[in-house]
Amino acid sequence: MKKIAQILTAGLALTVLAGTASAQVIGKTEDQIRWRQSAYHTMAWSMGRIKANVEGSYNKDQVAEAANVIQAIANSKMGYLYQAGSDNGKGWKETRLKSEFFTDRETLGKVAGAFGLAANDMAKVAAGGDAAAVKAQFGKLGDACKGCHDKFRKDE
Amino acid sequence: MKKIAQILTAGLALTVLAGTASAQVIGKTEDQIRWRQSAYHTMAWSMGRIKANVEGSYNKDQVAEAANVIQAIANSKMGYLYQAGSDNGKGWKETRLKSEFFTDRETLGKVAGAFGLAANDMAKVAAGGDAAAVKAQFGKLGDACKGCHDKFRKDE
Repeated sequence: MKKIAQILTAGLALTVLAGTASAQVIGKTEDQIRWRQSAYHTMAWSMGRIKANVEGSYNKDQVAEAANVIQAIANSKMGYLYQAGSDNGKGWKETRLKSEFFTDRETLGKVAGAFGLAANDMAKVAAGGDAAAVKAQFGKLGDACKGCHDKFRKDE
Repeated sequence: MKKIAQILTAGLALTVLAGTASAQVIGKTEDQIRWRQSAYHTMAWSMGRIKANVEGSYNKDQVAEAANVIQAIANSKMGYLYQAGSDNGKGWKETRLKSEFFTDRETLGKVAGAFGLAANDMAKVAAGGDAAAVKAQFGKLGDACKGCHDKFRKDE
């Protein structure tokens, strides 16, 4: 598990760095900020759906659909949407990205790697359909989200 | 293939209808509109990534990542975000949803079913990594997106 985390972490760091020079980066800064805000809100919807299921009547399919969305976005290399200087700018609204995102790569690698692992585990557990296990993993995934928010997202 | 389309179409129609009464629907209208706008923009980013790959240097992983995001969202039952009356309201911006979405269920079932099929095929073809096949399927998926836009989205 630790080894996988290290690989993911290294992969993410490389992605973030590679993104700076890659020909495959698309959009202007304002597009990239809007897309990343969109991706996070799509994940927030999905987290809300899982929460509603673990706190209310449980529907296995709905939880799996939501977990699959989070997993796909978590594995989409969103690092490409974080080009240098994009700690300033407006997508749907002003970005809340802290400048530390571009300077504290070690912490970034850790929190992003933890999120990737938690998202992949969430999809696996959701497919299993055990409501108690989903509830436990949902808590871990929420903590992984918060790990990044605490470090790299400005308060509103 | 036709049978699968019919099953998907029926499933979608049921989802859209069931969404109206389901206890699992979350958020206020403004949240639901913001979430669906976010999901579409996340898919637009992904479509843009695939386009950049089929028109420029081809990266199999990047295309697969993007196609997986589209597939997961296409299968997430976004119908739950279309509650009655949500052809009016503001998420990130005013919704462009036409009222016909709630009255022309037959057309909705057709275009949404076609989109679901095209998105699932896109993910399969992307995993295969054949750039020419991806380009062809990308065209079909774009047509499926447009099929819904033409019918149910207001011009800007």
